[in-house]
Amino acid sequence: MSQTPAKAENPATADTPKPDGGVPKQEASGTTAKSARDDDTVITALELADAGMTPAMQAYFDKCTEKLGFIPNVLKAYAFDMPKLEAFVAMYNDLMLAPSGLSKLEREMIAVAVSSQNRCYYCLTAHGAAVRALSDDPVLGELMVMNYRAARLDRRQRAMLDFAVKLTAEPWAVEEVDRQALRVAGFSDRDIWDIAAVAGFFNMSNRIASATDMRPNSAYHGQKRG
Amino acid sequence: MSQTPAKAENPATADTPKPDGGVPKQEASGTTAKSARDDDTVITALELADAGMTPAMQAYFDKCTEKLGFIPNVLKAYAFDMPKLEAFVAMYNDLMLAPSGLSKLEREMIAVAVSSQNRCYYCLTAHGAAVRALSDDPVLGELMVMNYRAARLDRRQRAMLDFAVKLTAEPWAVEEVDRQALRVAGFSDRDIWDIAAVAGFFNMSNRIASATDMRPNSAYHGQKRG
Amino acid sequence: MSQTPAKAENPATADTPKPDGGVPKQEASGTTAKSARDDDTVITALELADAGMTPAMQAYFDKCTEKLGFIPNVLKAYAFDMPKLEAFVAMYNDLMLAPSGLSKLEREMIAVAVSSQNRCYYCLTAHGAAVRALSDDPVLGELMVMNYRAARLDRRQRAMLDFAVKLTAEPWAVEEVDRQALRVAGFSDRDIWDIAAVAGFFNMSNRIASATDMRPNSAYHGQKRG
Amino acid sequence: MSQTPAKAENPATADTPKPDGGVPKQEASGTTAKSARDDDTVITALELADAGMTPAMQAYFDKCTEKLGFIPNVLKAYAFDMPKLEAFVAMYNDLMLAPSGLSKLEREMIAVAVSSQNRCYYCLTAHGAAVRALSDDPVLGELMVMNYRAARLDRRQRAMLDFAVKLTAEPWAVEEVDRQALRVAGFSDRDIWDIAAVAGFFNMSNRIASATDMRPNSAYHGQKRG
Amino acid sequence: MSQTPAKAENPATADTPKPDGGVPKQEASGTTAKSARDDDTVITALELADAGMTPAMQAYFDKCTEKLGFIPNVLKAYAFDMPKLEAFVAMYNDLMLAPSGLSKLEREMIAVAVSSQNRCYYCLTAHGAAVRALSDDPVLGELMVMNYRAARLDRRQRAMLDFAVKLTAEPWAVEEVDRQALRVAGFSDRDIWDIAAVAGFFNMSNRIASATDMRPNSAYHGQKRG
Amino acid sequence: MSQTPAKAENPATADTPKPDGGVPKQEASGTTAKSARDDDTVITALELADAGMTPAMQAYFDKCTEKLGFIPNVLKAYAFDMPKLEAFVAMYNDLMLAPSGLSKLEREMIAVAVSSQNRCYYCLTAHGAAVRALSDDPVLGELMVMNYRAARLDRRQRAMLDFAVKLTAEPWAVEEVDRQALRVAGFSDRDIWDIAAVAGFFNMSNRIASATDMRPNSAYHGQKRG
Repeated sequence: MSQTPAKAENPATADTPKPDGGVPKQEASGTTAKSARDDDTVITALELADAGMTPAMQAYFDKCTEKLGFIPNVLKAYAFDMPKLEAFVAMYNDLMLAPSGLSKLEREMIAVAVSSQNRCYYCLTAHGAAVRALSDDPVLGELMVMNYRAARLDRRQRAMLDFAVKLTAEPWAVEEVDRQALRVAGFSDRDIWDIAAVAGFFNMSNRIASATDMRPNSAYHGQKRG
Repeated sequence: MSQTPAKAENPATADTPKPDGGVPKQEASGTTAKSARDDDTVITALELADAGMTPAMQAYFDKCTEKLGFIPNVLKAYAFDMPKLEAFVAMYNDLMLAPSGLSKLEREMIAVAVSSQNRCYYCLTAHGAAVRALSDDPVLGELMVMNYRAARLDRRQRAMLDFAVKLTAEPWAVEEVDRQALRVAGFSDRDIWDIAAVAGFFNMSNRIASATDMRPNSAYHGQKRG
Repeated sequence: MSQTPAKAENPATADTPKPDGGVPKQEASGTTAKSARDDDTVITALELADAGMTPAMQAYFDKCTEKLGFIPNVLKAYAFDMPKLEAFVAMYNDLMLAPSGLSKLEREMIAVAVSSQNRCYYCLTAHGAAVRALSDDPVLGELMVMNYRAARLDRRQRAMLDFAVKLTAEPWAVEEVDRQALRVAGFSDRDIWDIAAVAGFFNMSNRIASATDMRPNSAYHGQKRG
Repeated sequence: MSQTPAKAENPATADTPKPDGGVPKQEASGTTAKSARDDDTVITALELADAGMTPAMQAYFDKCTEKLGFIPNVLKAYAFDMPKLEAFVAMYNDLMLAPSGLSKLEREMIAVAVSSQNRCYYCLTAHGAAVRALSDDPVLGELMVMNYRAARLDRRQRAMLDFAVKLTAEPWAVEEVDRQALRVAGFSDRDIWDIAAVAGFFNMSNRIASATDMRPNSAYHGQKRG
Repeated sequence: MSQTPAKAENPATADTPKPDGGVPKQEASGTTAKSARDDDTVITALELADAGMTPAMQAYFDKCTEKLGFIPNVLKAYAFDMPKLEAFVAMYNDLMLAPSGLSKLEREMIAVAVSSQNRCYYCLTAHGAAVRALSDDPVLGELMVMNYRAARLDRRQRAMLDFAVKLTAEPWAVEEVDRQALRVAGFSDRDIWDIAAVAGFFNMSNRIASATDMRPNSAYHGQKRG
Repeated sequence: MSQTPAKAENPATADTPKPDGGVPKQEASGTTAKSARDDDTVITALELADAGMTPAMQAYFDKCTEKLGFIPNVLKAYAFDMPKLEAFVAMYNDLMLAPSGLSKLEREMIAVAVSSQNRCYYCLTAHGAAVRALSDDPVLGELMVMNYRAARLDRRQRAMLDFAVKLTAEPWAVEEVDRQALRVAGFSDRDIWDIAAVAGFFNMSNRIASATDMRPNSAYHGQKRG
């Protein structure tokens, strides 16, 4: 697998040159809310034995700990099987961090709007925090979680989310007119692919998280709130 | 109208004996997020001239300012017509603050679970904050906003929310078997009325807020986050 | 509470100068249909002891009996608790009878179209009768109950009901374009509030009625049929 | 075609030995409601020239006029093409009037419950009247129109309508367990066929009526109201 | 009943002058797939004794065998009652084979698009084969089964299927604007009737098939595949 | 990327020791149906320039051609960007071909049942063919495409598909009771992960295919039909 150690899972900090990122390590330690009490230890409802870590994956986990202060639970959940973990990390990092006509914030906005349609607790929590961090706008994350239609978005971002949410709710009805609306809003065909691919990826992740009752790290909840 | 000044709109602080409540006044001042920039001044999408305040309503607003640090925007939205404001306040305070077999927290949990089904930005924001405050559990509010089914609730509260959300999503299908499930979970017939009445009230408020693009006070977002 | 005795619950008669209204008292007595046999005595599925009536509420009930020949069952259902009854009556009378850019008939049409979307037996029966009475058009009530789209409405009333029903079915999707359609159809911002408020109110009442299996007075069924 | 003249379209009167049926001829004449003003003359939104009537169909129409006082508009709508009219009449009369383990009233109850799910104005009006007439219970027709779940039905009829409405709303999900529920409620396999066939027939008729904006004869509205 | 023997059930062959049609008799014999093992013998989940065949129906069945190599299972399913079988055959043959502004292929395309919306195994199998045969385009049948929106249709056929599928999914919402779209696409009012009638018929047949677990003849699966 | 050349995209042939697989190369050449005329050349609605192939990916494509007779269009669609192609291939091959408690056929059955819920033309075509090939049961593929509930499945496979389809249609409602139903049907926690992961993957792929109007290779349609 080829992702570099510099690509950490949470783009909120992965791309920050400052070694400690914008999110203080450990900030939730000692103050975990009652409702999240076990969320850092009992990560899914499935009992799956950890596989031994490959060196590449161990290095990646170490980098996460260094940058974020914790390893995102979705990665720990996949750690029962190294090929599955590697494939997930490779696809995730390409989609969310590689060069694209969509900014990293826009990709996270799609992630949250899709996860809101699917009411996925894990993804709304983890990626809602990412929207807050990348936008430096704590309310924007809330809007994506609650109802993206209530946000004051420019025409481009609104078209992007309308496409992603329609693709989530009724994929069979997406047609040329929907692609054309994206082009009119300024997106290239490559951008359309990226919107579809990010929306598609979270339609996958939402379902794996819901199927396994995946719990988000408790640290996300308090990040970038004000 | 008979509500006493002591009944402030937001139960998070209204029932707190401490004069300053748990939520510091003004805490969001000067740091309003970009996405909430106008939310404290342009409260709805409708242009409605303020009616003159009646003494009772002025006293109520003054009490809100004293206790909460601000007047909830829903009240300002109603202030174009005193009889409408008075009727709303009377019903709200009775439902959410009067004695009931449901705790104030449970009533707020219903408010948020119903508002999540209806994806109401105003009510999710204002009452999500109330759940965080009343429970002293910042994550519980997130769970009610995102997907109440992911919360670790006891059987009683789960049955309560299942009823409220079914009543929201498909009211025509609620029948004796649903009421009986509440009785088995320990609720009295009076409690069932209260669950229905709170769920019904937010089905009303969600729609008025969505119809008018009502914006929540920016102060709610940061309240009780960690 | 301030509603005057002249404001009876059912606007079909409440605003009629003739003392006996348009609906003959007792008209259904002695001929109650089998399916409505107990509907005038077993009003809900909940056992709730009557609270003692306050003088104001007793006077209101007496006025209902004088004007309508009966007390609407929804009022009896609320009579277990005087503050709840008073708040309901205050809000109902303000919404349905106070001055508005919407006629009383239009408000009742909203009530029935919303109740049809929610398939609420109580509200369809009581307010279907009101539409028949206020319009002097027995078929208009049927159309509102069955499918408002089949009625031959002018552009204004069609826009009004389209907004109310969308607000009922998918409140999260109501946006500026929907408000603008109402303005184009001739409605003021205050009218938009009133449409939203009436639609919201019946989204509440439908749910309380469905949650409690509330039964309509048997007298409604035969009113204003030909 | 073999249906006898004695099989008139509306079973409410078709099978009554009394020559004038239970519904007085002409009862709505001269008092047609505004909303139904043109419903007896402009029957659908389609312009289709009448074909010449075959003798058998003319005799059938004459019998309808004699028994019901009018020709049901659905028959007039089909009269542009005799083979279509004959096929419709043959299937309708077999389904609704031929011997069956389901009473004629039960078949009409299915017709109305299905038409309520599909919100078909024509069929709700015409067959709602039939339920009122056959049951001698004016409220039962209302219940079938508004929400069959609110009716006090015995277990057999409730199971019958649950099956018919599920078959209407999500036919793909009907399976052996649903058939078995009917058998437990006392239905034979032949009865199950008849429930399915009647529910299926109105799923057809509802769509033809909705597609063509078919209007019910105004006489139905006032029939058997109290 | 008056349908001539020349009108066989499956139009794929019924209108072919060649005595053996385009579909070789017996082609699936001896190679029935495991999943269709009993589908030619256990036709529905209901036990219904065969009625004696009338001469007309026996002649019709003989003609089916001669032309198709088998009797379509839907006909065998109706054979427990001759009047029901006759009414079904008369309506089916009129709708699908009589002169119309819609080609036989177009009527079959409606049949399959409607059956896809309703996910009806019997009708998708039997009429998917008919689309393949009538169009001499094996992929067109697949497209109708899977998602008609993915087919490269001309404006006329797309409008036709959009109407038929909307009429299936939300009949209550079909209005003049939908009929007008058909007229703009070149359809006459009589054509609109035929689109509605075919869509309606399969909304009936889909439900009878789903209600009874009707199994398609195994021969359909392999017909006209390449 | 580590997938070995022996892992071809289509498991129907990838795991067959015979070099020519069960599906003759080129079988559709010269006979492409009208509806699929351009499907082998215009693969999506997006114009995306091919990136140069990496040696590993070129070798993989060559292996597909050798084994299948063609390169699956989804792979060509991804070929505008090598990291995206590699990540997709790695995840696909791990999920569908790596050791699992689910057979390869069962994984393909999930793929098709999920794609049917989402009405994805590309995936239904490609993976419907895979089900036909792996099961040697041409009808089983049709059943998965049309309505998996109509298939005669054993309890294990039915539970598997019920979970996958619920996870697709309403992921927010999947809870411990659903996982427990899988355990009762004999699945391990690792199997549950695999069911969720395959269902999730096709919820992603369905959306990318629908968003881009991805066309299946024409060769799939005729494969393994009888």
